[in-house]
Formats: sequence, C-alpha cells, structure tokens
Amino acid sequence: MRLVQFCRKGNEGEIRVGVEHEQGHGVIDLKAFDPSMPPTMRGFLELGQKGMDCAQRALSSDQCIVPHSDIRLLSPVTGPDKVVCVGMNYKDHCLEQNAPIPTEPIIFSKFPSAITGPYDDIMLPNKTQKVDWEVELAFVIGQKGKHIKEEEALSYVAGFTVANDVSARDWQMEKNGKQWLLGKTFDTFCPLGPALVTTAALKDVHHLGVRCLVNGGVVQDSNTNQLIFKTEKLIAWVSQFATLYPGDVFLTGTPPGVGVFRKPPVFLKRGDVVECQIDEIGSIRNTVV
Amino acid sequence: MRLVQFCRKGNEGEIRVGVEHEQGHGVIDLKAFDPSMPPTMRGFLELGQKGMDCAQRALSSDQCIVPHSDIRLLSPVTGPDKVVCVGMNYKDHCLEQNAPIPTEPIIFSKFPSAITGPYDDIMLPNKTQKVDWEVELAFVIGQKGKHIKEEEALSYVAGFTVANDVSARDWQMEKNGKQWLLGKTFDTFCPLGPALVTTAALKDVHHLGVRCLVNGGVVQDSNTNQLIFKTEKLIAWVSQFATLYPGDVFLTGTPPGVGVFRKPPVFLKRGDVVECQIDEIGSIRNTVV
Repeated sequence: MRLVQFCRKGNEGEIRVGVEHEQGHGVIDLKAFDPSMPPTMRGFLELGQKGMDCAQRALSSDQCIVPHSDIRLLSPVTGPDKVVCVGMNYKDHCLEQNAPIPTEPIIFSKFPSAITGPYDDIMLPNKTQKVDWEVELAFVIGQKGKHIKEEEALSYVAGFTVANDVSARDWQMEKNGKQWLLGKTFDTFCPLGPALVTTAALKDVHHLGVRCLVNGGVVQDSNTNQLIFKTEKLIAWVSQFATLYPGDVFLTGTPPGVGVFRKPPVFLKRGDVVECQIDEIGSIRNTVV
Repeated sequence: MRLVQFCRKGNEGEIRVGVEHEQGHGVIDLKAFDPSMPPTMRGFLELGQKGMDCAQRALSSDQCIVPHSDIRLLSPVTGPDKVVCVGMNYKDHCLEQNAPIPTEPIIFSKFPSAITGPYDDIMLPNKTQKVDWEVELAFVIGQKGKHIKEEEALSYVAGFTVANDVSARDWQMEKNGKQWLLGKTFDTFCPLGPALVTTAALKDVHHLGVRCLVNGGVVQDSNTNQLIFKTEKLIAWVSQFATLYPGDVFLTGTPPGVGVFRKPPVFLKRGDVVECQIDEIGSIRNTVV
C-alpha cells in the first residue's frame, strides 16, 4: 500500500490520512471510510495492524476516493518524536569528501519542524549562502521498540519514502561548534514523500535506483545497494540509545554528487527545482524560493 | 503559577495537566475542573491565554485538589517538537575545559524520548562508562514564532523549569563523528521539573542560584546571572533557523563543576542520587539505576 497524508484544497488546516488508489484514480480518505480513524499518520501508525487492516479494507472498497485535483499531498508523516539522520552512509560519498568509511553509523538529527511536503517549496534562508541537496531513502517506524535485534528490525518498519536532506553547508561544517544540527534544520529542509510505501509493497528496498536532479540535470545517481549501514542495522543501532516510536523518521544518508564537493562547489539558488527519485517509491519535487 | 503534568497512582497511563495549590495542599486537576481542557501540557500551551486563564480560575476555586500522595509528578512537558540544548553557555564552564567563550550560541539537541520526570530514575546504559551530570535552567515556549525579536522574546515563553542535561561523555566527545546527539539522548537523559513556573511568577530568572548535588555533596554552584546567552537571545537565535512551537523545551547550558573535567574525572554510578536545584523554581532528584 501507498499511505499518504493530505489536505483538501480550501481546507488546508485539516490533515487527513489516505491510501493511494491502485489505478491512480485518487486517494481514499480513511477517516471518511471509517470515522474512528485518527487524523494523522502518527496516530494511524500507533494503531498498528488494526490501522493497516482498515486501510486495506478501504482500498478494497473502492469508496471515499478523492481525486488528486482536489487535494494537496503533505509529508506522509508530520510531528514525529524524532527525525534520525545518518551521515556518510554511502561508500562513494565518503570517498568524495576524503573521509574514512565509518565503522559505526554516524547519527545526527533535524527538528520535526523542518519537515515539509513532497511538492512544497524549499525556503532559502537569508542566513546561508551554501544550501545543498541530498537525496535519501527514508523509513518510518511502525512499532515502539528498544534494543531491537537486527533480525527483527524490519518488522518495526511501517514503510519507506523519499527524503531530501537539505543542508546549509556553512552552518553544518564551519559554524555552531561543528555540530551539524543548525545547518540541517532550517524550516522546509526536510521534504518527504510522496507516499509511505509499506514494506510488503517493495521487493527489495536495498536494491533501488536513487537519483537527484537539479533543474532536470542528474546530479546524484546511485543505488540503495551501496548503503554501508542498511535499515536493519540502523534500527538496531539507534534503538540501543533511544526508544523508537511509531512515526519516527530515519533518513539513511546520501550518495555522492552533492554540490559542496563539486569543483567548483555548486549551491541552490532561488528558482531551482530539485527532484529526488527512488525507484518503486516515487519522486518528490521542490522549488527553491 | 506552577503548572505540572501528573498521573494518578494506579492510572499511570493517563497524563493530566495540573496547577500546584499555593498552600502546598496538592495539585488542582485542570481537566476535572474544566473537562474541555486538553490532557497534555503541550495541548494546554497551544490554547495560549485561554488555558492560562482557566488555570488561574481553577487555582482560585480551591476545587478539584488531588493530594500529592495520590499522584506521580511527570515532566511538566512531554512530546515537544524539539528539545533545544545550548553548549558552553557559562563563562566558567568554558574556562574549565579550556574552550574559547563562544560569540554565537552553540546549539545541539536531544530527542524528546529522552525526557523523564523530576523524581524518576536515570537508567545507566551498558554502552557507556562516562555518564555525567549538568544542572540547567530550562524554559518552555508558549507561543508559535519565527524570526522572533529579542525585545519580544520573553512573551513567547510559557515558563521555566529545572533540567539535568545528563551526558555520556564518551559518546558525546569521542565517538559518533563528534556529533554530540547520541551521548545526550539516551532514554531518561533529560529529567525535567518539578513544575513549569510561569514567567510572571519569577522576579528575575537571570539572577537565580543554580546547584547540582551528587549524593548530597555540592558539585555545581553558580547563578543564572553567569549565562553568556540569556533566554531572549536564545529564542531570537534559534527562531532564525526553525519555527518554535508551544511546548518546545530549551536547556540553556550548564555551569562549571561537571564530572568529566574534574581531576581525576568522576562519573555517575548505580545508586548515586543527583539533585538539581534552581532557586524559586524548585529541585529535581533522580537516582541512577
């Protein structure tokens, strides 16, 4: 299934959870199908299998379909407890910056307030001149857990989505005592979407083409089979530190081709269109304003 | 006013918002006083002045008082969008680690999942041998804002509380690519409380004694007048990066006297009792287990 969050045009304040109709006719409004369904994806995921069963019934019913023209897609998750990010998790990306290949995952974070929708604008802040793109495979936790074993980790995942880990390189690398947080967490620096694709709907999430295009030109082109630490390892690792909750988002790291390591470096400017694509999951497209 | 979150003994799953009775007779259960009140502090703060007015009426009514013996106090805020932390924000604390005094705030974070109650246990993880204390003045945002001016910043604060920024020094300083996050965000590494003391109830929050005691012995003893970047500056600074939301927690940094810079270094062990005190706000006491 492809789960989404959306709002109806003209009622932008109200988040709804939906599931994409399989023939592309629109989105099935889960709360219209079953009024007991919660209004947000986080609430939906907290229901566990009960929520998934309801979404499956809604999908089979062919009822409560809202056409795409009537809605605006939001990030499939908003307001999680955490946005966990992984640094230097593609071998080639380590090589392009002359960094050693890590033997343990390097974990940093964004504030949830940075999350924005799959087709929303990326707002270029006045405080930075070095805003960069980073296409990433993201996954969302579906079940609370601590000290999760690698062998069981995939059962804690609700699904996968596409992320752009937008990064202000000056604030990430040169300022703030070299703590990456501020450079990573400007508002709109975490576009996510277009859908949360449930694990069962993907054949092999660690064998998918992943690309970033800026103004139509390919700048990153890799495959999730190049990930150093894969989904299972990341869940096992982070859950040794912190309890994971339904809705928690993990950004798994970016492949080579970011702007800051180009010669000369390239950064995003107003009017640029950044598209992040992952095979079988989808693509997000954000204009820099 | 002194706002709290609590649960009734025997009903630990249900969070309630309360206000401390002024004669210390107990806590007034806001939802019992007015069933339209939301169940969490974050929801309460989102009501703005309407919520504060209700708490004031409840306090004057002398009704719905629950004795302290019937409740367990929780952190006054849980599940915020962000826990913003400030590094090296006391001059003496910079000097004790031979670090330059910062000219801009150094911002890092904990995951909200690290928050625990004012008298809850600090769980010593197996993954670290270097767990340290850090008493800190904390404040909580009461109103959504972006690009907030210093002159207006205090009106965005709901109130103040006491924090212990518990830190695993090995993970903070030696591992994880020198990103502090993991060392700061183990479960239970953010005790908060005992109450959210509203701004109006404090004469001068930047002139309060702040102390940490380990097993009754004073290890940190300073005053919030030693803060390099004060509340107003921190709000103005961080809101240039990220939108602030009601419930967001700021930990303003710790004074000198932490264990890692002692000669020889001292770290917490099972059975230790850590008490963090701030004049007029209160004290939190957590046992290491």
